[in-house]
Amino acid sequence: MSASETSEFNIIRWIRSVTPPARNVPVGIGDDCAAIVLDCRRCLLKIDQTVEGIHFQAAAWRSMPEHVGRKALARPLSDIAAMAGKPLAAVISVLLPALFTAEDTRRLYTGMKGLADEFDTNIVGGDIACGGDRLVISVSVLGESNKRGDVTRSGARPGDALFVTGELGGSILGKHLTFTPRIREALELAEILPLHAMIDISDGLAADLQHVLDESGVGAVLRADSIPISEAARAVARQREGHPLDHALDDGEDYELLFTVPGPAAERVPKELASGVRVSCIGEITSAPGLWMEDASGRRAIQPKGWVHRVGAP
Amino acid sequence: MSASETSEFNIIRWIRSVTPPARNVPVGIGDDCAAIVLDCRRCLLKIDQTVEGIHFQAAAWRSMPEHVGRKALARPLSDIAAMAGKPLAAVISVLLPALFTAEDTRRLYTGMKGLADEFDTNIVGGDIACGGDRLVISVSVLGESNKRGDVTRSGARPGDALFVTGELGGSILGKHLTFTPRIREALELAEILPLHAMIDISDGLAADLQHVLDESGVGAVLRADSIPISEAARAVARQREGHPLDHALDDGEDYELLFTVPGPAAERVPKELASGVRVSCIGEITSAPGLWMEDASGRRAIQPKGWVHRVGAP
Repeated sequence: MSASETSEFNIIRWIRSVTPPARNVPVGIGDDCAAIVLDCRRCLLKIDQTVEGIHFQAAAWRSMPEHVGRKALARPLSDIAAMAGKPLAAVISVLLPALFTAEDTRRLYTGMKGLADEFDTNIVGGDIACGGDRLVISVSVLGESNKRGDVTRSGARPGDALFVTGELGGSILGKHLTFTPRIREALELAEILPLHAMIDISDGLAADLQHVLDESGVGAVLRADSIPISEAARAVARQREGHPLDHALDDGEDYELLFTVPGPAAERVPKELASGVRVSCIGEITSAPGLWMEDASGRRAIQPKGWVHRVGAP
Repeated sequence: MSASETSEFNIIRWIRSVTPPARNVPVGIGDDCAAIVLDCRRCLLKIDQTVEGIHFQAAAWRSMPEHVGRKALARPLSDIAAMAGKPLAAVISVLLPALFTAEDTRRLYTGMKGLADEFDTNIVGGDIACGGDRLVISVSVLGESNKRGDVTRSGARPGDALFVTGELGGSILGKHLTFTPRIREALELAEILPLHAMIDISDGLAADLQHVLDESGVGAVLRADSIPISEAARAVARQREGHPLDHALDDGEDYELLFTVPGPAAERVPKELASGVRVSCIGEITSAPGLWMEDASGRRAIQPKGWVHRVGAP
């Protein structure tokens, strides 16, 4: 793009040119709203923001704006996965920092568009503003509910077995920018299992499990030796002289699925899904409240340490 | 709220407590996604961001965060109106500046919630992050398409009569923060008239009319003495020694509706809608391209001056 082609309207014109119309989107980019035709009358809606200095560093957009754009869409897609839903359409608002070039914008959008295409999600609209202090991207995704019902955080029951996909911890070494939302895995799980509760791990295994426990009014016991610890968690633990298990428990941004199934269905949970992603049974849901860790030395209560944003006190 | 209650999770808990469940929202705030049941399978989706320093000044959130919250929701609602749609649900992402207090957040949300209730729109989810340099709010609204069809920007035809609601210009004096999205007016117009094209005036009458002309492949003639000039436009013109008509043409953020109907239907357009909002016929659509202004001295081509965001050249 030349300097004369860098206005908001020209960027939108370029985005329209690389975003062909879709069958189920009778009105797409360029009108006041997009119009979307659904297969059913029950839908999912989610918004997530991805902010420079919080979810990625300025160096990331300077060197690989594609990854930042991809992550901004991947985060809400991961939430659609956590409900066992199917994404349909996304709308995007972007506040560009003053230093952002038209080429950066093109690369940012290219990263988003690649992931959107991978999951048959149409980018149907957006809003661009310029002159921000930092890059701020909000993405809202419209999805279709699973026909077997939405899998919420509140469905865990005492006696449920507790599972996670993938390996956990150390996402700061790179996975937080390049993870694949577990859409396919969630649809496969919902197809073959009576899922009781599900959440995606963004705040950390312990913190997100605690959300499920709070919403379901139950407790849980984790088995220390069953938690799948990633190579990245081990590497971070070595750097910081910590314990790999702590990183698997408390590092955020794994974007894996944490789910429960009734005890008797536990043996039907595959060790590996069609995509090659591993599934691990890590514990069980208890009627007694609280979160417990069990290892060779016994059982102890644990406190989630996942990151909590704070606003200034009044 | 006390200082100990100011974390993101406590704010979300407070928001949940003042946002009761709705019949058509089986899963609301607090899960990975919201689930919404629609009356039909065709829906509308829109996102708009409202940014400190662009859409309001820091003084506005310091003195009246309710107005800023209200505006952040009103902007995408105005786009739903522009399609003659009915809003159903909204999700909100907020990046709070470091100085923002929990009380500011509560007041911001109270302003949004008041407007949402006025238009039967459920706030079903959101994302809060802290420590920004400035307040940035993105709101995505899900709506239902009008059963008579979506009214797009591309439907204007030669011979159509051109109308606007309300009075135009000078919104900077206050209306840009307090306007009411023309949802009711758009639904009434769609009920009684064969609307060809519609848009909400956010960039300015001339600039938004130009969008309709570009998308429809037509031109238009405006009649200078028919354009409804607001008192605020006259006041701003006096302050700046300009012409009131220029402010009505080029000031942004009126959030009134601009629409076209086939010529023969023009006489059926009411002078005033049920809400008391005035409607003015301001010109007509031509097959010849271009935008023209007609007054006692003749006809001259005009150029939209509406504000265009620019990103830095690469």
